Amino acid sequence: MSANKDSVPENDTVPMIDIDLARSLFDEFHAIGFDGLGMTRASYDVGENAAHACLERVAGMLGLEIRRDWALNLFMTLPGRDRSRPAMFVGSHVDTVPVGGNFDGAAGVIAGMAILSGWIKAGFRPLCDVTVMAIRAEESVWFPVSYIGSKAAFGLLTEESLAVTQRVSGRTLREHMRASGGSPEAFRTAQRLDPHQIRCFVELHIEQGPVLIGTGTPLGIVTGICGSLRYRHAIMRGAYAHSGATPRAFRKDAVMATADFMSTLQQKWIEIEAEGEEMTLTFGVCHTDADQADFSTIAGQVDFSVDVRSRDHALLARMDSAIHDARAKVEKTYGVALELGPKTGSEPALMDAALQQGLRESAEALGVSAYSMPSGAGHDSALFAASGVPTAMIFVRNKNGSHNPYEAMDEVDFVAGVKVLSDFLRRQSVEPA
Amino acid sequence: MSANKDSVPENDTVPMIDIDLARSLFDEFHAIGFDGLGMTRASYDVGENAAHACLERVAGMLGLEIRRDWALNLFMTLPGRDRSRPAMFVGSHVDTVPVGGNFDGAAGVIAGMAILSGWIKAGFRPLCDVTVMAIRAEESVWFPVSYIGSKAAFGLLTEESLAVTQRVSGRTLREHMRASGGSPEAFRTAQRLDPHQIRCFVELHIEQGPVLIGTGTPLGIVTGICGSLRYRHAIMRGAYAHSGATPRAFRKDAVMATADFMSTLQQKWIEIEAEGEEMTLTFGVCHTDADQADFSTIAGQVDFSVDVRSRDHALLARMDSAIHDARAKVEKTYGVALELGPKTGSEPALMDAALQQGLRESAEALGVSAYSMPSGAGHDSALFAASGVPTAMIFVRNKNGSHNPYEAMDEVDFVAGVKVLSDFLRRQSVEPA
Repeated sequence: MSANKDSVPENDTVPMIDIDLARSLFDEFHAIGFDGLGMTRASYDVGENAAHACLERVAGMLGLEIRRDWALNLFMTLPGRDRSRPAMFVGSHVDTVPVGGNFDGAAGVIAGMAILSGWIKAGFRPLCDVTVMAIRAEESVWFPVSYIGSKAAFGLLTEESLAVTQRVSGRTLREHMRASGGSPEAFRTAQRLDPHQIRCFVELHIEQGPVLIGTGTPLGIVTGICGSLRYRHAIMRGAYAHSGATPRAFRKDAVMATADFMSTLQQKWIEIEAEGEEMTLTFGVCHTDADQADFSTIAGQVDFSVDVRSRDHALLARMDSAIHDARAKVEKTYGVALELGPKTGSEPALMDAALQQGLRESAEALGVSAYSMPSGAGHDSALFAASGVPTAMIFVRNKNGSHNPYEAMDEVDFVAGVKVLSDFLRRQSVEPA
Repeated sequence: MSANKDSVPENDTVPMIDIDLARSLFDEFHAIGFDGLGMTRASYDVGENAAHACLERVAGMLGLEIRRDWALNLFMTLPGRDRSRPAMFVGSHVDTVPVGGNFDGAAGVIAGMAILSGWIKAGFRPLCDVTVMAIRAEESVWFPVSYIGSKAAFGLLTEESLAVTQRVSGRTLREHMRASGGSPEAFRTAQRLDPHQIRCFVELHIEQGPVLIGTGTPLGIVTGICGSLRYRHAIMRGAYAHSGATPRAFRKDAVMATADFMSTLQQKWIEIEAEGEEMTLTFGVCHTDADQADFSTIAGQVDFSVDVRSRDHALLARMDSAIHDARAKVEKTYGVALELGPKTGSEPALMDAALQQGLRESAEALGVSAYSMPSGAGHDSALFAASGVPTAMIFVRNKNGSHNPYEAMDEVDFVAGVKVLSDFLRRQSVEPA
């Protein structure tokens, strides 16, 4: 976060937020995670545990109710005037990828703390409980399972998932949980979050792409979280042969077949966008075999990945069909065989329309521009939405993407996002649900 | 070579060839080079040196004149009746790639030995000298210089080339030559081959592609040796970004740009072939960066190679122009930068029309089908042709390509090739040049 104190109204109390607390939390998180270049706060490991301990200490100082579930998700609650009402949740995660940035995840939790502290200092008490949830283990780079913390909170984590191992330590998720103070043995019996007892979940998060920078807008209101369709380990099999001595008719060129496959699907993407649909198509990994490939040899094998994302389940299915059509075409044209390998992915999640409208109204009331956009990346919000909780997300403009040390969120944009969130929660908390 | 004795006419003396000598030489070369899987006879190293020693021993037994030049090319000559006439040369190389086959190169030298031995046994003496030349170091995989032996013979090897190092030993070509008994210090002063004193050079070689298998023809008469146009180290530079969070308009996708570049040039190749032209286009190496590429990240870099081959210099120039057009197109479309890197390659070499006609006549006289075709691979013959020597090549049908342990030339096809070559040389040797 670029500190720009001049841009923070000094005597702003409507809506009330504690920006000093936010600054000190970002600083402390930085000190916890700094690895010499970026931030490394590994899930259920030293970094994430220290960030949770820091939050718990601050929550204690603020007098918030503190609860941890068996998987060590941290719930910090400002009690409402009517405690029988469903609570409003805000939050995100505080782990990072290796050598990541300080804002991905953390900004959403710190936003919630700044709001509750601001409200407490201003003497404002909401109608219903407001809970800041620090969710565990969102970055699936450490343990190969998505949304570990939020799945655990809703009782959706499988026993197999507890047995996966961390990429660095080689120890299981179960061992890491236990060493961090959790109770993995309770995973069947522990109390779960009841979606009916959660009025809404709102996650503030830096944008991980360039759209808000490109459109010149400080905030995004997320319309939906893309689902994905993935073939992470596709293999185009052709035949190695002498590049000069093998005429075209005799070739089974795995590179050329792969290029045609990709170009065909790129063309399909362009067609789909021309229809006004949103999706992305990415072949992030693509390589000939290092041992056998040579500039004077036709390639017999190309390994590559396919990643399709869309908010629209039907569009994912349509692209899957296009992938199979393109496969049939290149197999016929080039005499190759394309093994797509295991199909994986996730379901899209729509954000709640009324919450989106409420966030837009708060932004408008505060004179902040907000741009409606999908989230191409996955977030815990997808799990909340899939569990039946009305869910929304606020994106904050951010340069240089995320998952790298160069994330760059201006403090003025962060403050705008926190104010919009505070205003939104306060409006919701005084209107009967 | 699959031994198939039934298919060799027992009492064939017209043209005379010593197939028993050929068999024993193939066996001895196999014993010299066998590495447990294939043949490894490294240039100016144990394997090639032993094969040359074997040839010299046999040449001595046959009573041939033996000469070595400074670079250890071996010349084994049956003196003609009129020694003032330009000599006819046949030959090829006896080194192999690592874990290669027993026929690539060796077949051409052994064919020459089988012919001279057959002639001697039959008491036939040609009008002019006939020389079998065992050329050194044709496989540029050991030392990164093409046609080392034939360049040395014509005084075309540069001093820089003598300083290159062997990929396994790390020692220079100069050291390897000297250790093998050569005289690299004589490279400026040594006697060179005079193209005017060589009536023709004919190289018999296994076909390294599938054309003769595909057309069902035992022999090929080579029309020309393809030149090449190469960008061995091209780099497509885009920008790494989150696959889900980055819409198409914001992408600089190096993989998609590369796929489009390749598909565009493939289309150009198809157009050129439709005009009746011959060429090949190969992207043998293509890879994203192993450290940075990920299925959920748009690739910021793709490294790849371009190899274009054609007998027609103008066609190579036309493809180079198409490469630059395709580069401009993808740079504009995808916002990437394509660094083609150093351009390398070789000039095409046409085979002598009269020699091709003579070989076709010999094949026809012997009832052997022969198919006219270009050589996509490079051969020492290209260097002879470029030096002004009338040059021809005979291809022998061969399964599974070359440069691997699975080369498969039927003995019956080899015998057909040697007979055609013997007949051709005999006809030439009795007609005044």
